[in-house]
Amino acid sequence: MTAEGERESPTDRVRAFVPGHVTGFFSVHRHHDPEKAGSRGAGLSLTDGVTVALEPADSIEVVLDGDPVEMESVVRTLDSLGVEARATVKSSVPVSAGFGVSGGAALGTALVANQQFGLAHTETELVGIAHAAEVEAGTGLGDVVAQTHGGVPLRLDPGVPPEGRLDSIPVRPTRIEYVSFGGRSTGKIIGGDIVTLTAAGEHALGALRERPTLTRLLALSRTFAREADLLTSAAETAIDAVDEAGGEAAMAMLGDTVVALGEGLSMAGYDPVVCEVDPAGARLV
Amino acid sequence: MTAEGERESPTDRVRAFVPGHVTGFFSVHRHHDPEKAGSRGAGLSLTDGVTVALEPADSIEVVLDGDPVEMESVVRTLDSLGVEARATVKSSVPVSAGFGVSGGAALGTALVANQQFGLAHTETELVGIAHAAEVEAGTGLGDVVAQTHGGVPLRLDPGVPPEGRLDSIPVRPTRIEYVSFGGRSTGKIIGGDIVTLTAAGEHALGALRERPTLTRLLALSRTFAREADLLTSAAETAIDAVDEAGGEAAMAMLGDTVVALGEGLSMAGYDPVVCEVDPAGARLV
Repeated sequence: MTAEGERESPTDRVRAFVPGHVTGFFSVHRHHDPEKAGSRGAGLSLTDGVTVALEPADSIEVVLDGDPVEMESVVRTLDSLGVEARATVKSSVPVSAGFGVSGGAALGTALVANQQFGLAHTETELVGIAHAAEVEAGTGLGDVVAQTHGGVPLRLDPGVPPEGRLDSIPVRPTRIEYVSFGGRSTGKIIGGDIVTLTAAGEHALGALRERPTLTRLLALSRTFAREADLLTSAAETAIDAVDEAGGEAAMAMLGDTVVALGEGLSMAGYDPVVCEVDPAGARLV
Repeated sequence: MTAEGERESPTDRVRAFVPGHVTGFFSVHRHHDPEKAGSRGAGLSLTDGVTVALEPADSIEVVLDGDPVEMESVVRTLDSLGVEARATVKSSVPVSAGFGVSGGAALGTALVANQQFGLAHTETELVGIAHAAEVEAGTGLGDVVAQTHGGVPLRLDPGVPPEGRLDSIPVRPTRIEYVSFGGRSTGKIIGGDIVTLTAAGEHALGALRERPTLTRLLALSRTFAREADLLTSAAETAIDAVDEAGGEAAMAMLGDTVVALGEGLSMAGYDPVVCEVDPAGARLV
């Protein structure tokens, strides 16, 4: 057995799994310290997500599903940790479609680097590094802390612990369906005018905290998407169809993606991907 | 599908699993508010633990592995939630042997009651109720918050969030072995003179935070057991045997139990129970 906190042998491949995370509603909170910047809101962690492995390299590189990519969140994470490595990221969720792939890749990279290179950081330290990398890359604001927790996270305060307080809605094993109609740029939206969006997100969080249940989270997310003017026509059509079929659906922030509880999308005639709410959060595997 | 936050149908049995939790070292922090009282320290969450189910009853009752028992932590939890029910607790770890059965039963009860009776509390609210019940029952100080997190929790501050800050040591899937030589009373020790114990626990936590790794947690736990004068002769013999066999072991606080990483106890000639570090924490199943 390899002692923790020491370098692993090169043949002993370390990997991390990070759940995909779909935000239902959110508000944006800017701050000059990236560990205190972030979002408040709520969403779902999924058993579909990303896996990350690292191998030592002469420079920092990222390979996503077989292709070299620019993924600034991962580069910044490795940079903060002082590790030069090639990160191999595999995603079972669509990229740029609201599943938190960039945040998940950063968090998975931090967990693997810590183990493989014997860095001896705690979970909170690694989450702080990955969250800051994601915020500075401009690709997300709240996925990393939510993905760390798993389940149905409520982000009560922006940023990472201790400031960034998290709570969650306890749920039974829950089937989730999703369809994705395409990508959209997170950076363009969270870098733009966020006054209306943030007011709608704050209202939704307050309403959810009055009675925190899963169905209410979906309903408040639908209202948020309309109020924040982020609802696409494909998503609207799917959400309405699920509603007519008696199910519960919402749009993933920020992607042209719809998620539904149980068999909501199947009942509405869609051919969705099926997974579950992830019960465990990001972890070495 | 049953909507969350509504009563489940009586035929739809809700259960919770709560990992066993073995404390390696701790310090005691008393407070008149039971949500702020507790312990600091570190330990291991295990894939062996307790499952809890509830059924409506005319009065509060607890059945543990088939036998009616007095378990004040569960009674107080149900009382706080305003639920009259019979709690059926099954434990795959020994009772009163340092595995956090009383705290786990309280936490599992809170999770199941919330779902089954449509109470719509958040995780943090339920943890607060179970932790307070456990503290007031005098049967534990830190298991509930640790069991909520899973993994290898570091209890940085006593009590429940937001005051009770938690961190953790990220680990790969890790085989754990344990043997139990008998029970001992938590209440007698944590209700007694805790000056030496608390000084030793504070020192261990400080030393672990300087370099938070799993092997160091075990080593500091061994030192703590000696310094706090809690080491039993059976535990000492087993720990020494594991050490001689080249493994890492420590005593469970508070029980006459030894846990080892990997195959430590097998290598030393014991016939241990085998499980893993629990990656997920307490959850509905």
